[in-house]
Amino acid sequence: MTILFCSAVDDAEAYRRAMADRLPETAFRVHPDVGPPEEIRHVLVWRPPAGLLRSLPNLRGVFNLGAGVDGILATGDDLPEGVPVIRLADAGMAPQMVEWMLHGVLRFHRRFDDYARAQAAGRWERLSVPPASDVRVGLMGLGVLGGAVAEALLARGYSVRGWSRRPKDLPGVTVFHGADGLSDFLAGTDILICLLPLTDETRGILNADTLGRLPQGAAVLNAARGAHLVDADLLALLDAGHLRGAQLDVFEPEPLPPDHPFWTHPKVRLTPHIAAVTVVEPSCDQIADTIRRLERGEAPPNRVDRDAGY
Amino acid sequence: MTILFCSAVDDAEAYRRAMADRLPETAFRVHPDVGPPEEIRHVLVWRPPAGLLRSLPNLRGVFNLGAGVDGILATGDDLPEGVPVIRLADAGMAPQMVEWMLHGVLRFHRRFDDYARAQAAGRWERLSVPPASDVRVGLMGLGVLGGAVAEALLARGYSVRGWSRRPKDLPGVTVFHGADGLSDFLAGTDILICLLPLTDETRGILNADTLGRLPQGAAVLNAARGAHLVDADLLALLDAGHLRGAQLDVFEPEPLPPDHPFWTHPKVRLTPHIAAVTVVEPSCDQIADTIRRLERGEAPPNRVDRDAGY
Repeated sequence: MTILFCSAVDDAEAYRRAMADRLPETAFRVHPDVGPPEEIRHVLVWRPPAGLLRSLPNLRGVFNLGAGVDGILATGDDLPEGVPVIRLADAGMAPQMVEWMLHGVLRFHRRFDDYARAQAAGRWERLSVPPASDVRVGLMGLGVLGGAVAEALLARGYSVRGWSRRPKDLPGVTVFHGADGLSDFLAGTDILICLLPLTDETRGILNADTLGRLPQGAAVLNAARGAHLVDADLLALLDAGHLRGAQLDVFEPEPLPPDHPFWTHPKVRLTPHIAAVTVVEPSCDQIADTIRRLERGEAPPNRVDRDAGY
Repeated sequence: MTILFCSAVDDAEAYRRAMADRLPETAFRVHPDVGPPEEIRHVLVWRPPAGLLRSLPNLRGVFNLGAGVDGILATGDDLPEGVPVIRLADAGMAPQMVEWMLHGVLRFHRRFDDYARAQAAGRWERLSVPPASDVRVGLMGLGVLGGAVAEALLARGYSVRGWSRRPKDLPGVTVFHGADGLSDFLAGTDILICLLPLTDETRGILNADTLGRLPQGAAVLNAARGAHLVDADLLALLDAGHLRGAQLDVFEPEPLPPDHPFWTHPKVRLTPHIAAVTVVEPSCDQIADTIRRLERGEAPPNRVDRDAGY
């Protein structure tokens, strides 16, 4: 049995060592050194080249090296029918995402940007700040990462609401769902967090209409996918003073082009898709466990629903 | 029975209303309208003027409107012998302090300042960041506020150590104590938090010698008192590249003078003594409860040890 690794952004040698510890009897190849295609049973991939997956006749599992599976599903016909696509669930990403989001929520709640501007102007001025319980943080996307963020925000006393496609039950969180619930969700959200999967339904979901329904002075945090956001709509609402600011980790395309207005906008803080990166050890724990299950013919956990898109 | 209020920074009318709800039979006066001095039994004060306390012959309780009591103890001979000085314990300040500290720890751990610089330079560059468990946060001062900060940092997975004057037991925290323990504490601290009381022993405790013992690249957060820090020593270590940055909320004097180098130093972020402000409602809960105990002749909680200075 051979595992094929194919990613331009992950460390192949680190994965080779970690998988050798867990599945010592298994061969490990790194694309483009595929070897005999019929020997490849599992692939660990991030945005694989067109045609690669289809060329592997004995594939049993496709492991996506990240939480968002829009990239792998976009390969479309390349994905052999019936071969499960597995999403990394958490894999060390949840605590990082919580950190990035908590930092952003605190930034806007405690007005650290306003204080930075006051410092730059040499102004000693106390600003009014509500208690955390009066700050309504709205989470779009209530999966593994969204759930971890909700829990951390509740622990800090924030008023947490959530929105997802289907009804969900999350302790302490007021959950809205579907197209009908979106308006009410947005109208009562002071700080909006996007952690949605990217699907046909959620592409461009952060636009002039939805962001305009947020109350005056709201802030936006996006660490899902750049394509969730209509950049020009966000910029217009920031410039009109309707939105207070944005903290963004993801862009369409990436890297963000050098002439994009986000780079220099005073109300936009950006990071280069680092909010939560996969961590080799927990990722390989999950991958090795799932490979063993697949080889025993069991149903794998964290299998992607190709029709739903996540 | 009359309560006298004397503070230039707190909202007298808000305290008047809140105390009237809790102790309706009690009169409330606001300095300088003292009325007959012999009627004043309790004072709510922040930095009272010299001579005021001594002029009140029937004083039973001195309530300090804040967590740090260095200001009230500095009135020295004005404080009548035997009259208890009461510190506000928490009074809504702990969650705010946790927020300010958590924001600062995340800022340095996740390198948000480095990313802000990269953004300003138009650089898309991923930086290496350790997991929270590899980040050693060192807390100086393990009182009510320090304990709350430690708990919040542990919940986020940080490696937390503490230092205090006397030995303490705090779950999950490696505690050092006394002058002997200080060097080891500092040598293993990546992010230093100061929440000490200001006493003769702690004045200037953050200086060239102590801050120089922190490992290369350490960061400093101070929300205790400005006089804990020797400003010039911090600036020298920042400029020498030994320290990564500082987030400061307190200064000596306040407001920070307009020509002070902190205002413009690229590695210093400052806020105007707002990390944790007293909140009227929980403060008055505590004050009213303690006044009732004092009037019944009971020993009050949160009494300041004048000799220790906190």
